[in-house]
Amino acid sequence: MRVSVLLGQKALGMEERPVPVPEGDQVLVQVSKVGVCGSDVHYYRDGRIGPFVVDAPLVLGHELSGTIVAVGAGVDASRVGQRVAVEPQKPCRRCSQCKAGRYNLCPFMEFYATPPIDGAFAEYVAIEEDFAHPVPDSISDEAAALLEPLSVGIAAARKGRIVPGSRVLIAGGGPIGVITAQAARAFGAAEIIVSDPVADRRAMASRFGATSTVDPTREDTTDLKVDCFIDACGVPAAIVAGLESVRGAGTVVIVGTGADTVALPIPTIMNNELNVTGIFRYTDTWPLGAHLVATGQVELDPLVTGRFGLDDVENALNADLQPGSLKSIVAVR
Amino acid sequence: MRVSVLLGQKALGMEERPVPVPEGDQVLVQVSKVGVCGSDVHYYRDGRIGPFVVDAPLVLGHELSGTIVAVGAGVDASRVGQRVAVEPQKPCRRCSQCKAGRYNLCPFMEFYATPPIDGAFAEYVAIEEDFAHPVPDSISDEAAALLEPLSVGIAAARKGRIVPGSRVLIAGGGPIGVITAQAARAFGAAEIIVSDPVADRRAMASRFGATSTVDPTREDTTDLKVDCFIDACGVPAAIVAGLESVRGAGTVVIVGTGADTVALPIPTIMNNELNVTGIFRYTDTWPLGAHLVATGQVELDPLVTGRFGLDDVENALNADLQPGSLKSIVAVR
Amino acid sequence: MRVSVLLGQKALGMEERPVPVPEGDQVLVQVSKVGVCGSDVHYYRDGRIGPFVVDAPLVLGHELSGTIVAVGAGVDASRVGQRVAVEPQKPCRRCSQCKAGRYNLCPFMEFYATPPIDGAFAEYVAIEEDFAHPVPDSISDEAAALLEPLSVGIAAARKGRIVPGSRVLIAGGGPIGVITAQAARAFGAAEIIVSDPVADRRAMASRFGATSTVDPTREDTTDLKVDCFIDACGVPAAIVAGLESVRGAGTVVIVGTGADTVALPIPTIMNNELNVTGIFRYTDTWPLGAHLVATGQVELDPLVTGRFGLDDVENALNADLQPGSLKSIVAVR
Amino acid sequence: MRVSVLLGQKALGMEERPVPVPEGDQVLVQVSKVGVCGSDVHYYRDGRIGPFVVDAPLVLGHELSGTIVAVGAGVDASRVGQRVAVEPQKPCRRCSQCKAGRYNLCPFMEFYATPPIDGAFAEYVAIEEDFAHPVPDSISDEAAALLEPLSVGIAAARKGRIVPGSRVLIAGGGPIGVITAQAARAFGAAEIIVSDPVADRRAMASRFGATSTVDPTREDTTDLKVDCFIDACGVPAAIVAGLESVRGAGTVVIVGTGADTVALPIPTIMNNELNVTGIFRYTDTWPLGAHLVATGQVELDPLVTGRFGLDDVENALNADLQPGSLKSIVAVR
Repeated sequence: MRVSVLLGQKALGMEERPVPVPEGDQVLVQVSKVGVCGSDVHYYRDGRIGPFVVDAPLVLGHELSGTIVAVGAGVDASRVGQRVAVEPQKPCRRCSQCKAGRYNLCPFMEFYATPPIDGAFAEYVAIEEDFAHPVPDSISDEAAALLEPLSVGIAAARKGRIVPGSRVLIAGGGPIGVITAQAARAFGAAEIIVSDPVADRRAMASRFGATSTVDPTREDTTDLKVDCFIDACGVPAAIVAGLESVRGAGTVVIVGTGADTVALPIPTIMNNELNVTGIFRYTDTWPLGAHLVATGQVELDPLVTGRFGLDDVENALNADLQPGSLKSIVAVR
Repeated sequence: MRVSVLLGQKALGMEERPVPVPEGDQVLVQVSKVGVCGSDVHYYRDGRIGPFVVDAPLVLGHELSGTIVAVGAGVDASRVGQRVAVEPQKPCRRCSQCKAGRYNLCPFMEFYATPPIDGAFAEYVAIEEDFAHPVPDSISDEAAALLEPLSVGIAAARKGRIVPGSRVLIAGGGPIGVITAQAARAFGAAEIIVSDPVADRRAMASRFGATSTVDPTREDTTDLKVDCFIDACGVPAAIVAGLESVRGAGTVVIVGTGADTVALPIPTIMNNELNVTGIFRYTDTWPLGAHLVATGQVELDPLVTGRFGLDDVENALNADLQPGSLKSIVAVR
Repeated sequence: MRVSVLLGQKALGMEERPVPVPEGDQVLVQVSKVGVCGSDVHYYRDGRIGPFVVDAPLVLGHELSGTIVAVGAGVDASRVGQRVAVEPQKPCRRCSQCKAGRYNLCPFMEFYATPPIDGAFAEYVAIEEDFAHPVPDSISDEAAALLEPLSVGIAAARKGRIVPGSRVLIAGGGPIGVITAQAARAFGAAEIIVSDPVADRRAMASRFGATSTVDPTREDTTDLKVDCFIDACGVPAAIVAGLESVRGAGTVVIVGTGADTVALPIPTIMNNELNVTGIFRYTDTWPLGAHLVATGQVELDPLVTGRFGLDDVENALNADLQPGSLKSIVAVR
Repeated sequence: MRVSVLLGQKALGMEERPVPVPEGDQVLVQVSKVGVCGSDVHYYRDGRIGPFVVDAPLVLGHELSGTIVAVGAGVDASRVGQRVAVEPQKPCRRCSQCKAGRYNLCPFMEFYATPPIDGAFAEYVAIEEDFAHPVPDSISDEAAALLEPLSVGIAAARKGRIVPGSRVLIAGGGPIGVITAQAARAFGAAEIIVSDPVADRRAMASRFGATSTVDPTREDTTDLKVDCFIDACGVPAAIVAGLESVRGAGTVVIVGTGADTVALPIPTIMNNELNVTGIFRYTDTWPLGAHLVATGQVELDPLVTGRFGLDDVENALNADLQPGSLKSIVAVR
């Protein structure tokens, strides 16, 4: 099969590799569409994300849809032909985190496109069968691939304890911010305020989930006293401003990945007993994501701003440099 | 009645004031013992704590025991004569925080010894009757006063989700650290590791609750992977080191008040989905505190290292400068 | 003012009474519309509900809207003229349940139309100001009155832990069933199955919230394995059937009031670790209810099937005997 | 190896069977001690427990300790020689219950001594390695076996939300009641009231965990208003009495297995918003149990009232008919 491989910093190449053989509990998925994630771009440009270093050829891509074309011995053969969205992780199922229901925190996790595990810019991938989630025909292949970033938004909404009537501030009107705004709306949030310095992004947010927007270079959000602040940009100043905007006993969920060390106001956390946390991937989000898209509560198709072939992954990875770019798709088929 | 008043930075004086008249739902308490808290010392030395500024004469002291000597019209007169420990706060009972069970976060709170509300370095104080908690004879007046810092420890243990078998790291072997260690033990923690650079404080911690101690200048705690880290020192480096020492989905509770802005490692919070929070006072802790002391699960009497008269509050406030000082008591009677 | 009074079993009369004078923290509300609740009908027909016996004249009615026409000394006078929905309860605010955030369980509760507390079939009522909830102009007076039964539905949805994607079974297509179905939908339930033996009620449920309906005399629900079962009918057989229809670790919320002692299958509860609970009124539901109605997520106006004057309360109380009757309103103004 | 087999109702026999060969992730345990559980007795006397019918030869026994003597290919060989207590269950690790952290509710569970899965009245058993929990030398083989019923007590304490200061009522002073009382104490319960009509059992409860006891034939518990009621007897009248003894928003946990259908007072559940649930086995209890026994917080050794050889299982199963019998042990070695 044909595979697009990251060979080193800013160095991609096509390779021929054997089609994976699904193990007993796995299915083989013929890949259809793959979304480009910020982490793919990071690996491509920097050759690393924090402690995760690309020191051997790596296949990127972990937002994907496709069709089951073969199954392992332990899987019901009737699944062949099923359209699926892939949850791109393989936890050990045996450690204390897995057994406590937090398989996303499994220290033995094998996650697509995270060194040394290959991802999905390939014609075929294998995945444990319970991580290949069926999707109804009403969901397009592109939207099915984007159930992965929607899973991030759902995980953020859950961690943020968003319930009907919640007031939510989201920093960042990029793909994750816009998708999280939609997730927040689906969770019943009454007010969803998206903060972004870029007017186009604020406009996009208003179209998808936000009930209002804020330009943080001109407006202060401290008095909002929202129930929940979600950072979807990773900018230190935005995190601090968001923290100051939360009511007593409210929640702060950090989703954006740009930030490293950030100077946080400890008395604000203490005096308001804020609950500050972050999300690391997700557990059990695909079925809900598929439901939200199938019922029109979340729209993913309109977020796609660029489409590229498997030979053209490099352009897909650089598409974020274009103004107005939100989400790129690599169409393997 | 005689009252010790903070007149300005490092300026204390005695005054004669009228004995308070209890309102309908209040009781009048003849004060017996009052513990000296770090916040009293802060107000004395700096004239302020963050946004709270002493700009008028203020009576300090908010850790206290005494005896009910009069009651308001709405209070059962049989309470006269009862020994009590005072929970030194008066929430509004009507705001959304109060009605949600978080009266400690009431924005209309009147808290003893917090400008402009007077505290307990006085012969008599008034308090709402349900905040005057009966104590059994087996608890001394000094220990009854120290149910207030024990309440901090209990609140920290609850926020830290300490349950039987938990592994807990506590930074700081001062009064709050030592009391929190005992609270953690009472909550069933299996391992309670106290970190403090001072050998005497580590020894004290070992006597009261700690199962082991660590000198943070020589030992790294990163690999501990505890369920809960509680900061009881406010030192930025200790907070960061503690954060790095928590397992995935574990909790971080900031209790120490020294820290202002601290540079926190955001990826550590995110990648481990840590729950970082702080405590601001307490709700519903006195009955449990009294039970823990009465049953010997927590020892407070041995923590007292200095005793002073009401005329001698200044020395009580400076006692922490002496080596080996842990907790000072102002004996009003 | 004119008041409709329950004088004894099936005996109503009109009386002239003085207009209440609002206490310091109260507001005086000129009553507009009052919904008729099943409990009003019970008191009228039986003279009692369980331990609550009508042994003195009692004003019924506790679902109401109106306009603030006077305020107590402690209330901002600008509230005069405000349209409000009344949360008809007055907790003590001081007991352990109140202070824990569960004021609905306050043992000292004074609740409208529950002996010996008078209700709202009157021209004016007084209520604590924080229990008079503002409503926007987009909500009619009738719908504002029905925020009370909607509060029951919201409380049931919260207790039932309904979250986006939940599968919910509701027994009973009466007013509470239909309103709870709408609440469940607003909480994001993906499937809302309403069970009722009456075809008209199933049709009504399908119009308001249900995604499907079941005739329990012909269809078995055991295999549904829903996340949550809500009983809104009080029929023992329905409660048992519902219990058998819940997945492991799911919830059962009993809202219907008909049932007294019911033979429950204990092994079903144990082997599936079901969480069986009930609701008793509500806390903090009006603001959310107003939001859900104002945004069209819940429709209350179409549920009204009968309108009666204050002189005509007896007919309002008997309206449920008419086929097709769902909700009656007493229009005081 | 030699095995004691239940051949039919009240029919036991010894058989020679091949020693199990541990699969890749399994360990082979040479059995030391096996506790006799009420469920073993039920299968022996009745040939069934509810839907679980013994229709083929079955090895009973699921409370066991032993020593690892061999390991599968995927297990660290250094575990050979380790003393272990066996958690006698094998969940699928893949279903939604397993992945949500509730592996005890796995519908594909294979549990020892539950048809058709064989148990531990045998010289050797195989178990997944992470369900063979190491025990320190300070815990005897008998106590290690009894970590299984202690796990029931721990699961009950967790489900009952027992926290420091809780007031708990336990119905039944048999093995589970006495062990649960000790678990409640270890969870910090301030009052542990054990109800049992038999004086000897009350005396036993007072020795192990109870702070007081009640004879339900003579004393009413309704006014106790405990935080938590745990039924450890299965007697319908005790369950109803317990339910009436719980404060608003308190918990009811049904552990006793005698009850089938029980007539429960629905208004009591509703008006007090009780949380009624049960436990079905346990998740993640062995490490905590070992800690509690090793630290002396729970005593298991003194509960053993009878010891029998592997040839003598029938007498072990009938030992409960003797007055004063609490817990029987089959000593395989």
